[in-house]
Amino acid sequence: MRKNIKTEGQSNRTDSADLGFGRVVSEESHLRLINKDGSFNVNRKGLSFFTSLSIYHSLLTMEWWKFIGLASLGYLVLNIFFALVYLIFEPGAIHGEQAATFFEKFLRAFFFSVQTSSTIGYGHIFPESISANLIVASESFVGLLGFAVVTGLVFARFSRPNAKIMFSENAVIAPYRDITAFEFRIVNARKNQIIELQAQLIFSKMEKDGSRIIRRYYRLDLERDRVPFFPLTWTIVHPIDENSPLKNIVQDELIRSQAEFLILLTGTDDTFNQTVHSRFSYRADEIVFGAKFSNIFEYGEDGHHITVDVGCLSDIEKV
Amino acid sequence: MRKNIKTEGQSNRTDSADLGFGRVVSEESHLRLINKDGSFNVNRKGLSFFTSLSIYHSLLTMEWWKFIGLASLGYLVLNIFFALVYLIFEPGAIHGEQAATFFEKFLRAFFFSVQTSSTIGYGHIFPESISANLIVASESFVGLLGFAVVTGLVFARFSRPNAKIMFSENAVIAPYRDITAFEFRIVNARKNQIIELQAQLIFSKMEKDGSRIIRRYYRLDLERDRVPFFPLTWTIVHPIDENSPLKNIVQDELIRSQAEFLILLTGTDDTFNQTVHSRFSYRADEIVFGAKFSNIFEYGEDGHHITVDVGCLSDIEKV
Amino acid sequence: MRKNIKTEGQSNRTDSADLGFGRVVSEESHLRLINKDGSFNVNRKGLSFFTSLSIYHSLLTMEWWKFIGLASLGYLVLNIFFALVYLIFEPGAIHGEQAATFFEKFLRAFFFSVQTSSTIGYGHIFPESISANLIVASESFVGLLGFAVVTGLVFARFSRPNAKIMFSENAVIAPYRDITAFEFRIVNARKNQIIELQAQLIFSKMEKDGSRIIRRYYRLDLERDRVPFFPLTWTIVHPIDENSPLKNIVQDELIRSQAEFLILLTGTDDTFNQTVHSRFSYRADEIVFGAKFSNIFEYGEDGHHITVDVGCLSDIEKV
Amino acid sequence: MRKNIKTEGQSNRTDSADLGFGRVVSEESHLRLINKDGSFNVNRKGLSFFTSLSIYHSLLTMEWWKFIGLASLGYLVLNIFFALVYLIFEPGAIHGEQAATFFEKFLRAFFFSVQTSSTIGYGHIFPESISANLIVASESFVGLLGFAVVTGLVFARFSRPNAKIMFSENAVIAPYRDITAFEFRIVNARKNQIIELQAQLIFSKMEKDGSRIIRRYYRLDLERDRVPFFPLTWTIVHPIDENSPLKNIVQDELIRSQAEFLILLTGTDDTFNQTVHSRFSYRADEIVFGAKFSNIFEYGEDGHHITVDVGCLSDIEKV
Repeated sequence: MRKNIKTEGQSNRTDSADLGFGRVVSEESHLRLINKDGSFNVNRKGLSFFTSLSIYHSLLTMEWWKFIGLASLGYLVLNIFFALVYLIFEPGAIHGEQAATFFEKFLRAFFFSVQTSSTIGYGHIFPESISANLIVASESFVGLLGFAVVTGLVFARFSRPNAKIMFSENAVIAPYRDITAFEFRIVNARKNQIIELQAQLIFSKMEKDGSRIIRRYYRLDLERDRVPFFPLTWTIVHPIDENSPLKNIVQDELIRSQAEFLILLTGTDDTFNQTVHSRFSYRADEIVFGAKFSNIFEYGEDGHHITVDVGCLSDIEKV
Repeated sequence: MRKNIKTEGQSNRTDSADLGFGRVVSEESHLRLINKDGSFNVNRKGLSFFTSLSIYHSLLTMEWWKFIGLASLGYLVLNIFFALVYLIFEPGAIHGEQAATFFEKFLRAFFFSVQTSSTIGYGHIFPESISANLIVASESFVGLLGFAVVTGLVFARFSRPNAKIMFSENAVIAPYRDITAFEFRIVNARKNQIIELQAQLIFSKMEKDGSRIIRRYYRLDLERDRVPFFPLTWTIVHPIDENSPLKNIVQDELIRSQAEFLILLTGTDDTFNQTVHSRFSYRADEIVFGAKFSNIFEYGEDGHHITVDVGCLSDIEKV
Repeated sequence: MRKNIKTEGQSNRTDSADLGFGRVVSEESHLRLINKDGSFNVNRKGLSFFTSLSIYHSLLTMEWWKFIGLASLGYLVLNIFFALVYLIFEPGAIHGEQAATFFEKFLRAFFFSVQTSSTIGYGHIFPESISANLIVASESFVGLLGFAVVTGLVFARFSRPNAKIMFSENAVIAPYRDITAFEFRIVNARKNQIIELQAQLIFSKMEKDGSRIIRRYYRLDLERDRVPFFPLTWTIVHPIDENSPLKNIVQDELIRSQAEFLILLTGTDDTFNQTVHSRFSYRADEIVFGAKFSNIFEYGEDGHHITVDVGCLSDIEKV
Repeated sequence: MRKNIKTEGQSNRTDSADLGFGRVVSEESHLRLINKDGSFNVNRKGLSFFTSLSIYHSLLTMEWWKFIGLASLGYLVLNIFFALVYLIFEPGAIHGEQAATFFEKFLRAFFFSVQTSSTIGYGHIFPESISANLIVASESFVGLLGFAVVTGLVFARFSRPNAKIMFSENAVIAPYRDITAFEFRIVNARKNQIIELQAQLIFSKMEKDGSRIIRRYYRLDLERDRVPFFPLTWTIVHPIDENSPLKNIVQDELIRSQAEFLILLTGTDDTFNQTVHSRFSYRADEIVFGAKFSNIFEYGEDGHHITVDVGCLSDIEKV
């Protein structure tokens, strides 16, 4: 990490293109770059129709109830489709209960299709004509393949990294040895363990560049940029020393310059040993000056565990 | 690794927040930080109900017999539920054997549900009314999806890293060249191969800090912190030289200061080429002074293999 | 990355064997090394028949419609095969509809096989003789295993990295501070996020080496070789300074020496947290001298997003 | 890589414990450490019974025909077991064809079990008694779960890294600039692409250490220890300069000291973007002095591809 910083040149000022945000120029932007959920506040247009649909990506990232709803809908449509196909070959395609009206025939065909695509096959309804038998052959294949796809998707959803790091609501400018420091606090919001956690902190603000006002990015040095274990909390600290771009800064100036602190965390999820990432950002109005984080540790009542109260993650006290 | 140590400052003393344990302060703690099974001796409270349930994480990490028991239970509950639903639409919903009493009807509905959700569908019992047919459609979908989920979970469990590194019961302070060294020994307890294995060793103890007693952490330099292969054993060695925080230390002092040696191993499992991690710790009373590890190698009786006797991993001899 | 360059020696000239292309020597080659789709323009012969078939690799990388077509074909062949096996044991093997001609008997056996391999089992056709029952036992196993394999393949296809980075059609030699620079522009063509993206740029050309003409490779230093985020575009810049092998180069010379610029990108796909790679190359005739890339950013009409128009990725303007 | 070498101390001599082989001491060993298939020539004894069974590891790494054979066997045993269970509850448990003898009853129960565990359920045999129905419920669950496990295993087998690097049969001591070099040649034996390939080369021999003869290990510096691409071949070169442990060495001495050259390759498989590893070793008698590798490149007959003839990988010529 540190080494990277050095290779970026003597100065740690880097222009906007450096962060993959491109050279966006504006005097009016009050947009935040990273949303509270870690997504980027950007759009890409000009992508082809299929690319922008992005079915696979959506199927993986949508919520479970939507995924299950969509799968049910697919099952319904599949069976209605095949029910209609069976009806085309009536009369005599399907042998089963008496069906007088079209609706009764459709229902019979629909239920037959359900029993076929799900491979139940009770047999009180069964295919009689050759055409019906051929449709059964197709439907059984479609059913099996569809089921293979759903199983594949279910597992693909399961195998996605499951980490969730919770950030304190505010960052603080707190006393730190003889100076001050920019600090925020994080905790693991899941039951899994995260190890070898690394942090990058980038400070971004609008600056005059000749006649234009452009957004500039500064990488902030951390007191410590990685921890081997992360069972409790980690307070990430940027000491505001002589070389810090935050030296002597006040809140008004942060707000005027549309400052934003971008955070990228990288760690290893211990359950799957997968690399996990987490993004977050603090805007100028989310920084509290002259405060520090409160203690959130206590010893378990049984005396056998160190306990952290996640609900107090964002608790700060004035200094 | 070494480079990391340097970036941590001139001194290798780092305060407790550095390791993700937070700034836990206590004069009375005799808690160990890392348990013998590698888990952390900590609790997180204040998590939401669903987060603390952590269903997915539990389903992956519970033992196989519990997982299978839970799956059986789910299958049972599913079939009882649908049996009751079929009963609501009696009489006439299900065509099958004669059923006089409620219990007989329930049994028939339950067995019908089993034949439906498992997609067997013998057909000697089959859905007669439209409502029963609609329930069959739902149950077949639920059955298939449930099966997809179980299959996904089974594979997710299979694909979890499977490594197990065994640690010697005690660490020793052994003679090493002209000085002494802190040493412990590890062996791969599985049949897979682990390669590119790395070790980190951290020494932790309680120290006076003004009026408070706080826990401090020191990273210990290793004679060698990685091996490319790990077919047999590896004795991890911290030479106690002039700069070691262990210089001139005696056991009483280790115990008084509640010392603990934390270990993090990182390697690559050769079967899946997955990164695997292992944590362990030794407490003061698990250190043997003036001992060394016994030889555990022998040549195979057939003369064709080098053999290591895993059962002798912890064997030490006084010096 | 930079460190690597240094370890390659004082000079950054490296001969062809260094890049894994081997010491290919020719005076006549106008072949490009990396095709536009990122594949290498090479052949390996002398592999065994099975290796060159490479069934598994093909099943994973073929297009979806081919994969589904192949699976259907397999299902068809399986059922025809078992239909023929059932026919061998006629008469009396299968109990079902009347079948007079051989074709009718084959159809009945085929439909029975479909109902068996898909595990539907309506029961209006069922195995009567012991031999037929034994074949059913085999077919059910083959059907289940085949389905397991297809499900496994479907998921293996799903879990393959899904990233697609789009490169500008041309690279440019653009003004850069007081000198010029070799530049090209990339954008993420999918909806996923790529983070921690790294770039390597290699310049390759034919050179006299005594009496032979051989291909040489030079690694080009980048203004910046990694970005933490990649939500919009990234312009990758090689400044043509005193030490650059491109110093004072003109297009004719690039074409004469069959120059090619090889690019390797490595990043992390945020959806699966998988490492993804992308290769590309520019040939001499794809370099535009004295041009720069046009702006492709705009603020969303709603004022809430930064928008990039992917369709304008390759837009350049003369300078 | 290089950096690692430095951290190992001024001298690059490291004793045997360093490589994870442990401190094996012997005067008589003619064992090779790494077998030709990349496995280690070691045994671990003293493992518990279940650990040494290592079922999961075996199921993943056994050949396909064994895996399928084992799965068939499991299917057979499962159905025989349940057939016997059904028989216990005779008469009247199963309704179906007439069965007079015990063998006929067993067959009927076995075929019924097949139709149940595979979820076919034709229905011409069906469970009659409550006990039979309860067994069906159990068997359907066991069948479904067993199928989920097989599907999971099939996919786990598919998702294992599939790379295969072929090594030249011999290594050579070839002229290299003004000195000589230890060289061997590798090629990718699969259709996939391997990128970012790295190599480590370790030289091991028996040496006098006072009165004992022990095995020592030396890391050999490579002219180049990584390539970004690997489409054709890579000749890995250790220049025998002033500092090389191979300086002035002759073959007799290599053989006498039971020398072995250990190789570890690490790369990225482009199909799955998985990290892949390959191990190999050359023994003293597999080194050819005064030879070099022959050219194996040619231009495709169509002039559109660079072609490498894998069959000539090991071709060497005397110099």
